[in-house]
This record gives sequence, C-alpha cells and structure tokens, in this order.
Amino acid sequence: MIPIATALEQIRNTVQPWPVVSQDLISSVGMVLARDVLADIDSPPHHKSVMDGYAVRSSDIQAGCRELVVTETIVAGSSPQQSVKAGCAARIMTGAPLPEGADAVVMVEKTSEVAGAKPPQVRIDLSQIAPGHHTMSRAENYRSGDVVLSRGHQIRAADIGLLAEVGCDPVEVYRQPTIAVLPTGDELVKVDQQPGPAQIRNSNGPMLVALNQAQGLAVEALDIGRDDPAQLKRLVEQGLQKDVLLLSGGVSAGMLDLVPKVLAECGVEQVFHKVAVKPGKPIWFGQWSAGTHTCYVFGLPGNPLSSLVGYHLFVRYAIQCMFEQADQQRWSGAQLVNDHQTRGNRPTFWPGKIQVDSGMTRHVATLPWNGSSDLRALGQADCLVHFPLEKNEWQAGEPVEIWPLER
Amino acid sequence: MIPIATALEQIRNTVQPWPVVSQDLISSVGMVLARDVLADIDSPPHHKSVMDGYAVRSSDIQAGCRELVVTETIVAGSSPQQSVKAGCAARIMTGAPLPEGADAVVMVEKTSEVAGAKPPQVRIDLSQIAPGHHTMSRAENYRSGDVVLSRGHQIRAADIGLLAEVGCDPVEVYRQPTIAVLPTGDELVKVDQQPGPAQIRNSNGPMLVALNQAQGLAVEALDIGRDDPAQLKRLVEQGLQKDVLLLSGGVSAGMLDLVPKVLAECGVEQVFHKVAVKPGKPIWFGQWSAGTHTCYVFGLPGNPLSSLVGYHLFVRYAIQCMFEQADQQRWSGAQLVNDHQTRGNRPTFWPGKIQVDSGMTRHVATLPWNGSSDLRALGQADCLVHFPLEKNEWQAGEPVEIWPLER
Repeated sequence: MIPIATALEQIRNTVQPWPVVSQDLISSVGMVLARDVLADIDSPPHHKSVMDGYAVRSSDIQAGCRELVVTETIVAGSSPQQSVKAGCAARIMTGAPLPEGADAVVMVEKTSEVAGAKPPQVRIDLSQIAPGHHTMSRAENYRSGDVVLSRGHQIRAADIGLLAEVGCDPVEVYRQPTIAVLPTGDELVKVDQQPGPAQIRNSNGPMLVALNQAQGLAVEALDIGRDDPAQLKRLVEQGLQKDVLLLSGGVSAGMLDLVPKVLAECGVEQVFHKVAVKPGKPIWFGQWSAGTHTCYVFGLPGNPLSSLVGYHLFVRYAIQCMFEQADQQRWSGAQLVNDHQTRGNRPTFWPGKIQVDSGMTRHVATLPWNGSSDLRALGQADCLVHFPLEKNEWQAGEPVEIWPLER
Repeated sequence: MIPIATALEQIRNTVQPWPVVSQDLISSVGMVLARDVLADIDSPPHHKSVMDGYAVRSSDIQAGCRELVVTETIVAGSSPQQSVKAGCAARIMTGAPLPEGADAVVMVEKTSEVAGAKPPQVRIDLSQIAPGHHTMSRAENYRSGDVVLSRGHQIRAADIGLLAEVGCDPVEVYRQPTIAVLPTGDELVKVDQQPGPAQIRNSNGPMLVALNQAQGLAVEALDIGRDDPAQLKRLVEQGLQKDVLLLSGGVSAGMLDLVPKVLAECGVEQVFHKVAVKPGKPIWFGQWSAGTHTCYVFGLPGNPLSSLVGYHLFVRYAIQCMFEQADQQRWSGAQLVNDHQTRGNRPTFWPGKIQVDSGMTRHVATLPWNGSSDLRALGQADCLVHFPLEKNEWQAGEPVEIWPLER
C-alpha cells in the first residue's frame, strides 16, 4: 500500500507525452492545445467604428462646426472611398473601417439629418467630442503574430470564437486516448436484466463509459468479464488494443480476484497495486507495450464509489500526464458546514454538496453515506471532500479540500 | 430597453415546458430527468459481506471459540447453501450474500487456515467481534420503491452508475431542443479564408455551435446571412424548422441591420428587443409557430462577447425554462481581488479569472478587456463578473457575483 502522492508520481513517470494531431476546430472542445496559437491578423484589422453614427474630425466639432456634409456611407465589410475633409462626415456602421481624416464617431442618436440639404448634411447635437470617441484602433485587441492562446490550454466552447477569428482550423491538439471499459464479476447482470438472488446490475461499466465520454473520449464498452480466466483473458487482450484499459472489480484479495493474475499472463507489467485511499485501496496500475503501441491499464475496485474515486484521482491524472498537464490544480478549498468524523488509517474521500450562494466563501456539507457501495449518496453529491490522515474529528467551520464532480 | 429581470420574466412566460422522451441511458448525460427515478431493487439486495474473509457467529468469538469448521465458500454472485451453525464459519468474498446464522465477517488478514484439518478449519485471530462487523444489511442504501433521483435533476456521468443499478434504461428526460445558428454580416468570411480589407472571419457562428454542442444539443450551422433581404429570409425560414434559432449580428440600429425586419416578414412575433446589459444591449427575442411546431428566436448582437453574454444570460435560460428549471441558481459569490471601474448606465458583465486555491474564499480578478469585440481577453477568462448598476467604483475585497464559463 503506497501513499496517493507516490502513486501519482509513479503514474507521471510511466505515462509518455502523447502525440499531436490536427483536429477540426468545431470538434476540438475539451482537447488540449499542443502548440501556442498565433494570430494571423490584427484585431481589429483596421481603425473602426464601434457605433452606428457619423465619422467626424473631432477638431471640427471642437471648433463649433455643427452641420457637416455627408460624403458617403460606410458599412461593415466595405472600404471607405474617400477621406473625411474639414466640414465633412461619413455615415458609418458598427464595425466598419474608419475613413482617413476622421478620428471620432458621433452615435446616430446624437445627430439629425438636415432636411432637404443637397449634398446631404447632418446636424451634430454635441458641443465637443474627444479624439478616439466610439472608435477602436487597429490591433488594439492583438497584433498579428501575438500568442492568443497558449500550449496546454484546454479548449472551451467560448474559445472557439477566438480560434475561428485567427483562422486556426484545424487546431493542433494532443490526440485523445481511446478507452476500453471492462467490468468484471460473476455477480453482474446487464442493466436491462432483473437481478436474481445474489446478483446486482453492472453499474460500473456504464458509469465508466459515461465518465470518459464526458471528457470527450471515445470508449468501447467490453462484455462483462466472468470469473473464468480464459474468457477474462480474451476480453483483456481485446482491451489492450486501446490506449487505456479500465477494468473494474477483481483486484482485491479474494480467491476469485483474477484480474492481477490474468493481466500478468497477458504481459501487462505492474507499476503499483494498492494505494492508501478510502474508498479505492485495491487499485492496480500497469502498462503493456507491443511494438509502438502502449496501453495503460487500471484495475479499479468493484464497489462503484471506489471505482469513481480511482477514476478521478488516478485515471484522469494519467490522461493529464499525456497532455503534459501533470501540474494542473484540480482541488479547491471550502469551509465545512457540519462536524464530520472519519475512521481508519487511510485518507478519505467523502461525497459532499457545495452550497452555491452569493457569499464569498465556498461552503460544503458532507452527505450521509454508507460507504463504497452506496450510489444513492452520490446522486445528491456534487463533490468529493478530502479528509487527510492528520485527524479523525472535523469541526464545522474548518477548511477542507473539495473536488467538484462536473458533468 | 428593458431590465434583465424583465427579459428573463418574458422568456419564462413565453417558453413552453418541453415534451418528455425516452433516452438511452448511456447517452443521457447532460439531460434533465422528467420523472422521479424509483429503485426497483433493494440496495444491497441481501445482507452481504464487505470484506474477503469468514462469515461467523459473533457469539462464538465472544464465547472464546477460536477454531471454526469451514462449511462452504460463498463468492459474489452465488447463494449460500447452508446456514452457519455454532462452531462453524463460511469462507466469503466481498459482495457475497451473508449466510443465515452468521452476523459478522472476520477479514481474511485476521485468520489462518488450520493445517491438515478435515473438515477444513480456520483459526480466528480476534478475541471479540461486534455483530454486524464488515457486513451490510439488505436495503441499507435504499429500498425498492424509494426515489433515488428526482425529476429536474440534470444527469451527470457519475449518476449513470446509480441509474444503471436500478435498471433505469431508457431514462425519461425532457427532449433536447434542436438549434440552428445563423451568423449575419457582409463583413464576414469563413474561418478557412483570409480576410480582405474591411473583412473579419465568422467567429460567432462556430462559437455558438460549440456552446450548444457543449450543452449536448444538436446544432445546424447555417450559411452566413448577407445584407440581402431575400437571401437572409431563405436562411431564416430554414432555421425556423428547428426549435431554437440563434442569429448573430444585424440587430442594432444600423441601416443594414435587417434582422428584425426579416424576422417580422417571416411571421416571427417579437417579444422584446434591447435589454439593459453591457455588452449585449441590442438582443432580440421572439417566437414563431406553425401548427404544433414553435421556434424560439434570438437575435444576438454581432460582437462576439455580446453574443456570448446573450447566450449565457438569455438563451440558456430559455432552455432551462423548457426543462422547468427556471428557478435554478447559476451565479455564485466571490471576492474581488482588484479595484474595478465600470461606466455607463447598464449592468456590466466583465471577463474574470477565478483564483483556484485551497483557501475557503472564492477570489476573482477582472481581466484587461477592450470591450465586446475583444476575444483575446475571453481566452484568459474563466468567468463573467457581474457589476450591477448601483455604483461605478469597486474596491478590492468587495463581494461580486460570478458566472463560471464551463466547457
């Protein structure tokens, strides 16, 4: 049994940085940039108006000139045909390029057309205007060649706009690993079956599939592995073709806990077995290579909460290491709102509920929980609360670390 | 120009509750439960062992009996063949049903086999054991008929385990609306094109597609709408076949801001136009019905941050209303780490960065930002900070509301 920090270090030392691929921009959300993204344009690309109105020379307004000859109309997407000379203005729309000569824009609500004037004229209802008013300078946001998003950034939906603006399609990202999920146990029946005596439905398989899919990963759900070494070996060999194989069940000390034995027979090299964490102690980690292909293998414990904690703590960390994000912070602090007692000699992760409110302090409550088989508590939880070994009695008001369970 | 609260109220009064559909469990993540989910089993389904070891009568141990006759082995998935009588024990694996007569489990590490004994015997290295030790009672987690997840709950990956355990496949959820995205503007070129003078790339279209896809919604990206009423009308009519049509651009006061006019020509009934929010004031909302089909239409402003704020503030709220989640809290509080100044007469949403740390207080910094066309700031941001109208000068240390920009 090794400490969590040692397990993470061994994962970090085992997992290789992942290859870089070109990904269609629109399907890149959730992936991690493998290169800095440089702008290929200035933003804005030209001096521009940020209002609908009239492009003017501020010195004209300052000098008391209130009626200006309108020389042209400039819409977004068109280029000015002439410069604005003294006594003149150009009608201009939001986003359109500011014509030469003009250095400010009067919003349309502060103007009126001069009836019947030929050439057309506009009356300005302002006594002064500062140079630059309602305009933006070329490259005010960023300049061609600037880094707009850095290597290591995980792409969010909101980033797609910026990547599109700089023409970054396809985008260079770390390739997503492929995942195989292999639940094991003679007691398991499929979700659509009614469990007989001594049976339960396979809940870990679908949960692990969903957890990976929520990270944007392609997952193959393998058949349920039985307590039959030959059948289990066939399924493991199938799973080893993927980049990551996640087994659940069969890793504790029971006489039928075949997983470590079958993995060894398949040539999977063990890195660690058993970590001081509650729930989830029996977790197993190793790797298997054939030619240039490597598969990282996790044997997660069979109880659903043990599997979930193992996934969040160790599997996601391995994937972060592939993307060279081993240092990324995933915990945050919160204030415990209730007293809490832990037991035993391992750091504990307990289902908790974050209290979303308009206060500045994050509050978290621990939920009633029967242990690693109790999935109902998880349905109410939105985080795992970490209770380190230092003590067993926690008081309301104390700081704790929490790990949000996102989608 | 109406206040935000009025706009939200008008959306709530317009959007109808959405139909309920049956969804494959594994693809239901992100959807909202339309019915309470009831357990069809007890959990655990039987008294069970939570350790690998020996099922014993605690009174035997208490009475000083240290060597017990081993009568059978019970593995997970099998049923006990006999009850445990005085002086006897059954070898038992984690998750296996506890045999009658036994009321506690001794973990295997606290036992040793008695060499050569026939029938086999086990030595117990404990002087006492409490009834119930290392066992769980039938239905300790939940009972058949209990509500395990409530109507209105948004399904997360971690919930798939619980739903699988109670056999809830397919799952009854609110149908996901279909979305059409229609960016407009003569200045727009496609992402794979090099912008000419006065042109910019279409960033809103891909961003709005990605924002919806991140919510698990099916999106059709329509062609770019041009400042040509006939072409724009054709695209609008195409978009109205979906449940929600999102336009961007063309809704402010410019002479070529055709969107409200074309929407009226298409028979879309306006609910509101212009909301007191910065950025995003020109937002337009309406609805269109044909027979039993209704399409909700948002005209989002053309500047990318205005579009983003409009999407988070109003479009997502409309979708929440479909799922009868209008009351769901999406803001939380944080402490501002820097002084901040706002201007103008509208509540402002400003890009911010949450400081993740192990402290109990959420901290947020506002980012340098040039306004609604500045996408670079958004790339660094992970939230929007809300500055209400009450004042313009904000001091470091003051509480503010933040809206996390999740994936």
